[in-house]
Amino acid sequence: MISGPSLADYLKSLRTLVEARLNYDSQLSKQCPPRLLESIRYSLLAPGKRVRPCLALMACEACGGDPKDALPAASAVEMIHCYSLIHDDLPAMDDDDLRRGRPTNHIQFGESTAILAGDALLTLAFEVLAKGIQDPQIAVACIADLAAAAGAEGMVGGQQADLEAEQTQELTLSELEAIHRRKTGRLLTTPLIMGGRIACTTVETLNNLKIYGESVGLAFQIADDLLDVVGDSGKMGKGVNKDADHNKSTYPALLGLEESRNKAERLIEQACDAISSFGERGEYLIALAKYIIERDH
Amino acid sequence: MISGPSLADYLKSLRTLVEARLNYDSQLSKQCPPRLLESIRYSLLAPGKRVRPCLALMACEACGGDPKDALPAASAVEMIHCYSLIHDDLPAMDDDDLRRGRPTNHIQFGESTAILAGDALLTLAFEVLAKGIQDPQIAVACIADLAAAAGAEGMVGGQQADLEAEQTQELTLSELEAIHRRKTGRLLTTPLIMGGRIACTTVETLNNLKIYGESVGLAFQIADDLLDVVGDSGKMGKGVNKDADHNKSTYPALLGLEESRNKAERLIEQACDAISSFGERGEYLIALAKYIIERDH
Repeated sequence: MISGPSLADYLKSLRTLVEARLNYDSQLSKQCPPRLLESIRYSLLAPGKRVRPCLALMACEACGGDPKDALPAASAVEMIHCYSLIHDDLPAMDDDDLRRGRPTNHIQFGESTAILAGDALLTLAFEVLAKGIQDPQIAVACIADLAAAAGAEGMVGGQQADLEAEQTQELTLSELEAIHRRKTGRLLTTPLIMGGRIACTTVETLNNLKIYGESVGLAFQIADDLLDVVGDSGKMGKGVNKDADHNKSTYPALLGLEESRNKAERLIEQACDAISSFGERGEYLIALAKYIIERDH
Repeated sequence: MISGPSLADYLKSLRTLVEARLNYDSQLSKQCPPRLLESIRYSLLAPGKRVRPCLALMACEACGGDPKDALPAASAVEMIHCYSLIHDDLPAMDDDDLRRGRPTNHIQFGESTAILAGDALLTLAFEVLAKGIQDPQIAVACIADLAAAAGAEGMVGGQQADLEAEQTQELTLSELEAIHRRKTGRLLTTPLIMGGRIACTTVETLNNLKIYGESVGLAFQIADDLLDVVGDSGKMGKGVNKDADHNKSTYPALLGLEESRNKAERLIEQACDAISSFGERGEYLIALAKYIIERDH
């Protein structure tokens, strides 16, 4: 049981901080053409759960830091997530017209502006880290973390592997997991690590946050796959069964619904174990992990 | 007159260092899908003049530092330049099939891989800076410089403004210059600043390097426009008069050939004045500035 505000209220207060910061960080000067700025803000400020940035703030607080100090890290990771959605939605990639119930960026602004908005957000993420984190050593470590997580060996590589898998063959379970670890997992783990770094925590604690993040990340993906099969399109804000249409390998397809649910639950247990040493400070991270497999959108 | 090796020999020795470093920095692990890696290296290691990375090394040496210390900055700026070419060549952007006499990345690897290769290079640039520059304060400053130069208020904004200008109207001279300052100028200035920072030079010297870079950048663009009108396609490795085909505003179109040449010469004088206080150490920077308006490809 949580002693303070409910998880929902706590997350809401973090989201308010994050959204104010995203609004601030994306107020670019006149040097940015208005249409590009509009396109950047259209996607970045679109309603969203802000899971990744909230994780940065939560980890910082769980490690005894002031969550506000982690706002540059929170903003940067949301920018990376947002750019990846814009580029993934492009006709040459997943070719999606709808995102969170609204036209995707390239539908709204055209393909060239969407590509550039993604490029701009990816670049701005690193500028925000470099300028926003006070201690240069911590800033450099966070930049190295985020770049490694987002780049060719992380998220971008995962998207490439995912697109290749769609064209060529059915995936095995371990191949599917490898893709998800890169495509989703690393960008959920990195904000936790950055939050911990900003709170000046120990290497051991950073490692526990990593285990928590990787387990939650995989569980999150399994839950997403399950929602794609059993969710309804109103709550999801996107077409349901889109994965099956695209011939994508999913956990339910490979393991069945029941075993997928079991696997997600085991992962959440693992995540909670990893941060059990946090005691009361870790209660919101634990509540969040549990929420992931209970959510319906 | 230069006292040591000729400019050509000096640049060749710097290029050798840069290319070894690019090769090293782009040797990613098995976590990167092979096709994506091939696509990244296809563009990054393609033959090129390496002007931007050489500027980082030259500035570092001109400020009394060891040019090798500037290799991470050199590598990063070339990665940014390379990613921008890959994305600019895409069908939704400038739609070019040929680059430096070879098929463009999306022609060779397909559009989705080309988009991801660009994203990966943009991300890797910041990883290389964060991991390669020893002093964290200098690393953070270089990351902030490069991100500002490459992002929505710099290069990406310039590309957006350029694409918009093509669709809508003839540009005035000041609008054209504003685009070039962002699209080309800032990415020529930033390696100089980074090189100076790595050599721990003064703020005043950084400012002189900035003036040099801005002037040379604009002169470089004017020279490029002139080459597009009067060059030959064999030496250029791309179609000549491509700008006129695309209805792009150019210096020769706005000022005429003669006045464009004069303007470029005045800018080069300005560049050389800015670094006159470097004395003998600045001789290669001065020789390079002069070469820019004399080159024929």
